[in-house]
Amino acid sequence: MSKTIAINAGSSSLKWQLYQMPNEEVIAKGIVERIGLNDSIFTIKYGNDEKYEEIVDINDHDVAVKMLLDKLTELKILASYNEITGVGHRVVAGGEDFKDSVVIDAEVLAKIEKLADLAPLHNPANAMGIKAFKKILPEIISVAVFDTAFHTTMPKHNFLYSIPTEYYDKYAARKYGAHGTSHKYVADRAAEMLGRPIEELKIITCHLGNGASITAVDGGKSVDTSMGFTPLAGVTMGTRSGDIDPSLLAYLMEKLELTDIKDMINILNKQSGLLGLTGISSDMRDLEANMDKEAVQVAYDIFTDRIRKYIGSYVTVLNGVDAIVFTAGIGENDAHVRSEVIKGMTWFGCELDDEKNNVRGKESVISTEDSKVKVLLIPTDEELMIARDVERLRK
Amino acid sequence: MSKTIAINAGSSSLKWQLYQMPNEEVIAKGIVERIGLNDSIFTIKYGNDEKYEEIVDINDHDVAVKMLLDKLTELKILASYNEITGVGHRVVAGGEDFKDSVVIDAEVLAKIEKLADLAPLHNPANAMGIKAFKKILPEIISVAVFDTAFHTTMPKHNFLYSIPTEYYDKYAARKYGAHGTSHKYVADRAAEMLGRPIEELKIITCHLGNGASITAVDGGKSVDTSMGFTPLAGVTMGTRSGDIDPSLLAYLMEKLELTDIKDMINILNKQSGLLGLTGISSDMRDLEANMDKEAVQVAYDIFTDRIRKYIGSYVTVLNGVDAIVFTAGIGENDAHVRSEVIKGMTWFGCELDDEKNNVRGKESVISTEDSKVKVLLIPTDEELMIARDVERLRK
Repeated sequence: MSKTIAINAGSSSLKWQLYQMPNEEVIAKGIVERIGLNDSIFTIKYGNDEKYEEIVDINDHDVAVKMLLDKLTELKILASYNEITGVGHRVVAGGEDFKDSVVIDAEVLAKIEKLADLAPLHNPANAMGIKAFKKILPEIISVAVFDTAFHTTMPKHNFLYSIPTEYYDKYAARKYGAHGTSHKYVADRAAEMLGRPIEELKIITCHLGNGASITAVDGGKSVDTSMGFTPLAGVTMGTRSGDIDPSLLAYLMEKLELTDIKDMINILNKQSGLLGLTGISSDMRDLEANMDKEAVQVAYDIFTDRIRKYIGSYVTVLNGVDAIVFTAGIGENDAHVRSEVIKGMTWFGCELDDEKNNVRGKESVISTEDSKVKVLLIPTDEELMIARDVERLRK
Repeated sequence: MSKTIAINAGSSSLKWQLYQMPNEEVIAKGIVERIGLNDSIFTIKYGNDEKYEEIVDINDHDVAVKMLLDKLTELKILASYNEITGVGHRVVAGGEDFKDSVVIDAEVLAKIEKLADLAPLHNPANAMGIKAFKKILPEIISVAVFDTAFHTTMPKHNFLYSIPTEYYDKYAARKYGAHGTSHKYVADRAAEMLGRPIEELKIITCHLGNGASITAVDGGKSVDTSMGFTPLAGVTMGTRSGDIDPSLLAYLMEKLELTDIKDMINILNKQSGLLGLTGISSDMRDLEANMDKEAVQVAYDIFTDRIRKYIGSYVTVLNGVDAIVFTAGIGENDAHVRSEVIKGMTWFGCELDDEKNNVRGKESVISTEDSKVKVLLIPTDEELMIARDVERLRK
């Protein structure tokens, strides 16, 4: 028996989940928010719906990790630090170097920091989390689990952009995708739920959260995905534009009198998507309370249309599809979005069962009995994937 | 009986075709190239394979038009200028103002010039052609036929980008598409060839030339198209990148040490696409002679993959498809590209007949008898569409 902790470190946050392995039981989970700001929020959920919360100034990730481990022992969730046998870290960008999860040593850590170009908001924060745990638990194995690893099986004609090839050779400019751990988890679960070997299945997975991406999974391998060089590309998201005509950047920079393209990209990352289209919210739940407003209805139509189009395009990549899977916040909880998306696919034998679709966050097949293409709802579990990879590499 | 001339004016060229109407017979056609440069090339083809060619310095479009009309009378193709009863001009960008072809007056001309923002390479040249003919044939009706007009039926959720809506309200930033005249022509012809009313058909048209775009046509109306705010977006083209992650622009500008985004857009317009991927040529014919090179094979796979994906996405927009149409240089002449594209669609009942597909530039149904989706090859004829619109508006 061993205890593994799965970590998702952001620039001012630290999300974690503690597992009893190998039985995969969640012993406790929590989040530290507002790290480096005043009034940081420290939360632990454990046992029988028990909750510990404290508002306190937490200066950095080192302090956050120390406090976390202290509280876990104080609350008797751990007898001592030594009970932890492995730490797994989510890392967003693994570039072309990391095709699988890996035990972190000095060289790996340096590479993760160097890959910040590909995920400037994420990789440096992920590295902070790694270093904080290394400092306090230097003897314990730590493992990096990359969002991009699952997508490293994409063929060249899907990951290359139609730009001069020297930009790939010299600057590694290509499609990397993201959410790989989630796409892999739900694709594997879909095969299990359908009782068929994944090797013979064509699956399209839709991870629809605040960030959103669609992946074509052929025989268990990612062959194409909607996010690109960074997580900005693809479908419409909470605050991200997804795909737009690149010419528009030049035109808008002139109109908005911007001189630095970083400001333009910032607008596309943070003020666009559902938020930009509605001016109300980036959160689909807020929008659905405002569907009487024309702008909200249009944003909703755009959101579902872009997902539908990616699914359609991946049907041609796979030349077929056995199952379409919905996961993450919106995918797991929003029956209306799911039914709007599938509406464009009845022609090729994909049909939802309205009653079965009327469900939230519970593993289920939501297509009709006769549907040629199965539609599934599968809550994602990236933390479990991280804990599993720690176990696998610990041995 | 009347004679109508269809004009496609570029910044240094003037392509034209002279029709006997209403019987739509081509009496003569030709091109003036290198206008404003030394050794301009002036060509007329007429009668029974007869050809007139002259190399001479032609300073501007006014001179080119005067020379054209003079030569047409000199060669007895026209008895006099007066025989011409209408002039039709291709105009690339009509913005949201022009939903149909229109008789050109001073106000229309001013609007065309103002819309240069949306087609900086094309609209100013189109306006030069209009003015040159106005000067020499002031009494004769002239008509503008817009590349964008056919696409003005797109619903809002397809033409809006997921960016702050004020950019649409204030700056008209939206998808306009292009090649509309061609997409409309081949969609109409497809319905005629299939002997069915276009109102009940779902058609996906693929205009694959040096520029390339895909359109979803529902009941005769464009509902979505792959080109965007400008003709840079969409599929991979001869020298254009098509869709890429917008973040990549910021990354590449830093690596390439570019400070003006216009230089970046210029690279994406002129040094990318098939040319950028291969370093050999933007012309598919050149590439197919070099298929033993890995980069060429990859570029070819990218080219066909992007077309396939757009078709797949439009199948979901239409929730079905009755016919897929190939047109323009590559679409009409390249059997291999057509068969590669259709390969990804056999799953939903779309199958090519290899023998029927072995054809160039000839109207034909190239799918198998049993194919649920019909595939057609239809040579485009934008000039004829222009001549027809002149006739229609002349009355």
